[in-house]
Amino acid sequence: MSLVLPHIGRLPAGPLNAISDVAGVTVGHATLAQGAVQTGVTVIRPHGGDPFRDKVPAAAVVFNGFGKSIGLVQVQELGVLETPVALTNTMSVGSIATAQVISAIQANPEIGRSEPTVNPLVFECNDGYLNDIQAMAVSAEHYRQALASAAPGFEQGAVGAGRGMSCFDLKGGIGSASRHASAGGMQYCVGALVLANFGKLAALTLAGQHIGNGLRRLRQTTPDAPEMGSIIMIIATDAPLDARQLGRLATRCGVGLGRTGSIYGHGSGDLALAFSTAQTVPSRPGSAIRQSASLHDNLLDPLFEAVVDSTEQAIVNALFAAQTVTGRDGHRRLSLRDAAAGLP
Amino acid sequence: MSLVLPHIGRLPAGPLNAISDVAGVTVGHATLAQGAVQTGVTVIRPHGGDPFRDKVPAAAVVFNGFGKSIGLVQVQELGVLETPVALTNTMSVGSIATAQVISAIQANPEIGRSEPTVNPLVFECNDGYLNDIQAMAVSAEHYRQALASAAPGFEQGAVGAGRGMSCFDLKGGIGSASRHASAGGMQYCVGALVLANFGKLAALTLAGQHIGNGLRRLRQTTPDAPEMGSIIMIIATDAPLDARQLGRLATRCGVGLGRTGSIYGHGSGDLALAFSTAQTVPSRPGSAIRQSASLHDNLLDPLFEAVVDSTEQAIVNALFAAQTVTGRDGHRRLSLRDAAAGLP
Amino acid sequence: MSLVLPHIGRLPAGPLNAISDVAGVTVGHATLAQGAVQTGVTVIRPHGGDPFRDKVPAAAVVFNGFGKSIGLVQVQELGVLETPVALTNTMSVGSIATAQVISAIQANPEIGRSEPTVNPLVFECNDGYLNDIQAMAVSAEHYRQALASAAPGFEQGAVGAGRGMSCFDLKGGIGSASRHASAGGMQYCVGALVLANFGKLAALTLAGQHIGNGLRRLRQTTPDAPEMGSIIMIIATDAPLDARQLGRLATRCGVGLGRTGSIYGHGSGDLALAFSTAQTVPSRPGSAIRQSASLHDNLLDPLFEAVVDSTEQAIVNALFAAQTVTGRDGHRRLSLRDAAAGLP
Amino acid sequence: MSLVLPHIGRLPAGPLNAISDVAGVTVGHATLAQGAVQTGVTVIRPHGGDPFRDKVPAAAVVFNGFGKSIGLVQVQELGVLETPVALTNTMSVGSIATAQVISAIQANPEIGRSEPTVNPLVFECNDGYLNDIQAMAVSAEHYRQALASAAPGFEQGAVGAGRGMSCFDLKGGIGSASRHASAGGMQYCVGALVLANFGKLAALTLAGQHIGNGLRRLRQTTPDAPEMGSIIMIIATDAPLDARQLGRLATRCGVGLGRTGSIYGHGSGDLALAFSTAQTVPSRPGSAIRQSASLHDNLLDPLFEAVVDSTEQAIVNALFAAQTVTGRDGHRRLSLRDAAAGLP
Repeated sequence: MSLVLPHIGRLPAGPLNAISDVAGVTVGHATLAQGAVQTGVTVIRPHGGDPFRDKVPAAAVVFNGFGKSIGLVQVQELGVLETPVALTNTMSVGSIATAQVISAIQANPEIGRSEPTVNPLVFECNDGYLNDIQAMAVSAEHYRQALASAAPGFEQGAVGAGRGMSCFDLKGGIGSASRHASAGGMQYCVGALVLANFGKLAALTLAGQHIGNGLRRLRQTTPDAPEMGSIIMIIATDAPLDARQLGRLATRCGVGLGRTGSIYGHGSGDLALAFSTAQTVPSRPGSAIRQSASLHDNLLDPLFEAVVDSTEQAIVNALFAAQTVTGRDGHRRLSLRDAAAGLP
Repeated sequence: MSLVLPHIGRLPAGPLNAISDVAGVTVGHATLAQGAVQTGVTVIRPHGGDPFRDKVPAAAVVFNGFGKSIGLVQVQELGVLETPVALTNTMSVGSIATAQVISAIQANPEIGRSEPTVNPLVFECNDGYLNDIQAMAVSAEHYRQALASAAPGFEQGAVGAGRGMSCFDLKGGIGSASRHASAGGMQYCVGALVLANFGKLAALTLAGQHIGNGLRRLRQTTPDAPEMGSIIMIIATDAPLDARQLGRLATRCGVGLGRTGSIYGHGSGDLALAFSTAQTVPSRPGSAIRQSASLHDNLLDPLFEAVVDSTEQAIVNALFAAQTVTGRDGHRRLSLRDAAAGLP
Repeated sequence: MSLVLPHIGRLPAGPLNAISDVAGVTVGHATLAQGAVQTGVTVIRPHGGDPFRDKVPAAAVVFNGFGKSIGLVQVQELGVLETPVALTNTMSVGSIATAQVISAIQANPEIGRSEPTVNPLVFECNDGYLNDIQAMAVSAEHYRQALASAAPGFEQGAVGAGRGMSCFDLKGGIGSASRHASAGGMQYCVGALVLANFGKLAALTLAGQHIGNGLRRLRQTTPDAPEMGSIIMIIATDAPLDARQLGRLATRCGVGLGRTGSIYGHGSGDLALAFSTAQTVPSRPGSAIRQSASLHDNLLDPLFEAVVDSTEQAIVNALFAAQTVTGRDGHRRLSLRDAAAGLP
Repeated sequence: MSLVLPHIGRLPAGPLNAISDVAGVTVGHATLAQGAVQTGVTVIRPHGGDPFRDKVPAAAVVFNGFGKSIGLVQVQELGVLETPVALTNTMSVGSIATAQVISAIQANPEIGRSEPTVNPLVFECNDGYLNDIQAMAVSAEHYRQALASAAPGFEQGAVGAGRGMSCFDLKGGIGSASRHASAGGMQYCVGALVLANFGKLAALTLAGQHIGNGLRRLRQTTPDAPEMGSIIMIIATDAPLDARQLGRLATRCGVGLGRTGSIYGHGSGDLALAFSTAQTVPSRPGSAIRQSASLHDNLLDPLFEAVVDSTEQAIVNALFAAQTVTGRDGHRRLSLRDAAAGLP
């Protein structure tokens, strides 16, 4: 069985076909890959500055709330994010949230003094099949490493928070993609980054092709365990949108996800976050009134399509980029390529 | 181009492959089809009794809220529906809501006296392309006709509320399907009924096959107008579920919808409602405490899959069942079969 | 027992102490008061123009969803209202929604043709104690009357939609108030209009004074029927706010409501809507990008206080303005003044 | 100025007038009070067993989402809590979440192996005025101490998570109360526990009396700083209720809060959680179907009243129980009693 990486949809990808095609967005990883510890942290910086001082409009959507993220309550209330977006394994949310707070205080010592507190924003999936998650090996130092390494060019697959993740009973992890779309006569970029850790093999669908059952026969190994996965989908765009509109974009991640074979399984924490880099919201405003620009809502369809397609593409890219990984107790996840090649 | 009606997914359909495979559920239509008036009403009865006296657990989900439904606020608060579910065109929601109130009072004269009020539940799509929607031709009498004709066997396609609806620039309308699923050692039935009025032709996807562009070339006629459609998706099940769980089921309609090519377009009111017939909630309880049964949440995946697949199947069935219709100002929507046959 | 109308809170009222202190906002009533028919319609126009062409930012909040309003789904999705706000009795929502659609089409004949549909926005309470609600006496003509009579000066109490409403087992109805508040060095006006139809007498609290029990002893007549009331709270402001921020304002209506003695009773549909007149959103935008202004979120506290106080004041004003009314089956609601004077 | 602790409302309190009047509920504290470190942890155990194995129905409501809690996403999806409820300062949420995960794994080593993950549930307020919050002095060991000390009898005021909290510019902290209410012929208990850290002195209202301004003149010291507080309100009940109904209870916390003078200030994270001890949801169900009991919704008003009154009472109790505390940089919060006595 031979597989070719498909291009999803009719919109063109950006030059990197990654979330970092949205100007200013960078991604960094810290990867832990020793024996039973197969896990990590991935950080998405919305811009090159300090997001506490210059917040970006954002909104989150929950498709299935079997998840332990932190930070969503405040994002929903205030419509901004004020830290980088962090992804990690489910039991490390506490550590990484603390690391985000410390990092924000180091840059802004007035936090918790004259300034109010900072809202950490950490999403998670459960990499417990490959990773000894009880070891809680991810530390604040890994957050700092990931943050320091953030760049427009970044690895995909079994790296960072994606190191130990499984997807459709294969090796999952980090995937990214981008699409260019035209709205109101202007060109905008939509980028997606996913932490893909969901799905049962039989359901795997590649650009509409139900290849899961074929692979399953090839392998004859997949146990029919209930899904305990999750997926986190992060959307960035340079289109000028407010938080309400970004919530509309984030909602469309669910379409791209569903097209790959997901049914938003009971045990899968399926969440999306969308942010716009077009404008920032200053922590210390120079004036009481903020002037902002936003696309008219009836022009959003091309951006919706870009979200759907870049999300699906990012999941597919995660599957194609990931390498076979062996982790705790000899557990092993074949990469999609190895599985298709009939490797055991 | 020859088309074969596909079976979506791996779960078996019920004997009718319709929402009425859920025992007790019946569907009736009133169809208006004269010249420029191409519209109607469809009614789904959750059981053979009076839903005001014996309410059923229910929950609704909004994927894209460009819609004018009535009744969702109370369904969300109390977790029950207490009238039949009515579908009609967007400008007739008021008339049909009034008809529902009158109908409930006729059966329960104490409503608005010793009993509180009744919550009408009406969903809508915009059939304005084929139908002279400004004529507001749908009346309370049509609601009564539809209600009186409700039966397990019912027509699909360009009937009832579906008479004037368009889907992927083709003729849309009413579609239905069902799936049997096993959970916790028991067999349950999930049925879907959709009022399909959404999508652009280029995006049409049939069981994963992107056939829209092919059809588009065949016709060479589709204008690139913005979508002004909508879809209403109604799920019935005989599985014992409470309102929170039914909300989880309704959420999965969005997956089935997305797989047909929808991006939840800006102008499309995309809503789902799920109800369970396994137990009723009495208006006048015999005792203060209600005993009820519910499936454990970690057994829901087969029902989620059934919702996804029956929703997608219902949309496909609507397209295959609908006939070509010509309506106001000579506007015409080809059926999928006629379009595939290359008819102009 | 002598009662003095209190001034709620420390902020000053506007010149009219009414929602129409927000420049451009007008209110009109149609009142039906003959025998057993004691009901009506109240309409709030957000500005002097056509709200379909020039929509205003808005958001709604549900405190207790035992209610049958129409229009909230789209307000939440798009963050605007596009018709006047209509209030009426619970069984007339359908009629008034239809009247709103007709009225919008008359002004904009392209609705349902080249333009998509219009979103009617109708709130309701149950006036069934005084009014023969089954008579469904409110018609589209009454909506037109109310709309045509809209003006900055308007009556309060047992008028319009408030004609048949009860509040704390006394006569309720329409009340309004306003507050001026300073935020970011600018003065803004917040106005409230309520349709007050909730509460049990024992709980009535006037500016913090629990006077309900005293009144109850005086009357010795209140049956301990379960509450079947509701309250609709409409907030207008000239402060520049987006829909998310208006949702934050609407949330504070619940505080003012609670201070009068409400517990958001089970059978009470308690909803709030807030809109801003500072900017409009054109239906047919001249350009793809909309420029808008919004107050920084950390300056909102004075506006929150104005919402809380003007809501409480509007409820108190409704009670003080309402006259004793006798309706169907000899049912009678004493005004607060008559009840305090010991009248039977 | 002399103050008497008022009894709020007409319902009777339970024997302890505390959340632990709900049988099985216990509360424990760990208090850090040395120099600039004035903070702590408070833990509420819903029953004497292991909440991961025997989860309890629960729901949360956000009044103002300026907060950093963890765990709400999953509570909302699944309608249960599966750890004790932890309260702490805003920067210690990460540490305490990690402590909860570790604690759950120690009791259930299969978590993250054959069992899925555990959902930590930590709420927070910002005690940064009195506490050197940047010191991050709260550790997993404090969580264990608090958990080990949980008992029906527990201290209120400046203890546990309440150690460094401020309320109405006075000393706030932990407060608790309970009410007995009759519904459907049965007696139920509703208990509230609050972490009170909100409000400006001028707004302080005691049982309807606006005493804040009087106190303010007495002190002549309150700076008009913007509010940076928060309040967490936890409701327990032995009434049989499902998650949807518990959400309705939690919503009524906002009424009790508003009556004390809160306007849900912009910078205040105001959240409520309600849980029922009447029934548990087993992690490993013996059968696929769960039988459960729930009160009919139209009997809930007495419980709503109990929630409103016990929440207000718990806030008042926090103010009366708290002692004057001096913390970092010589910052000092007078207790209500000391402030009323005119102490500087």
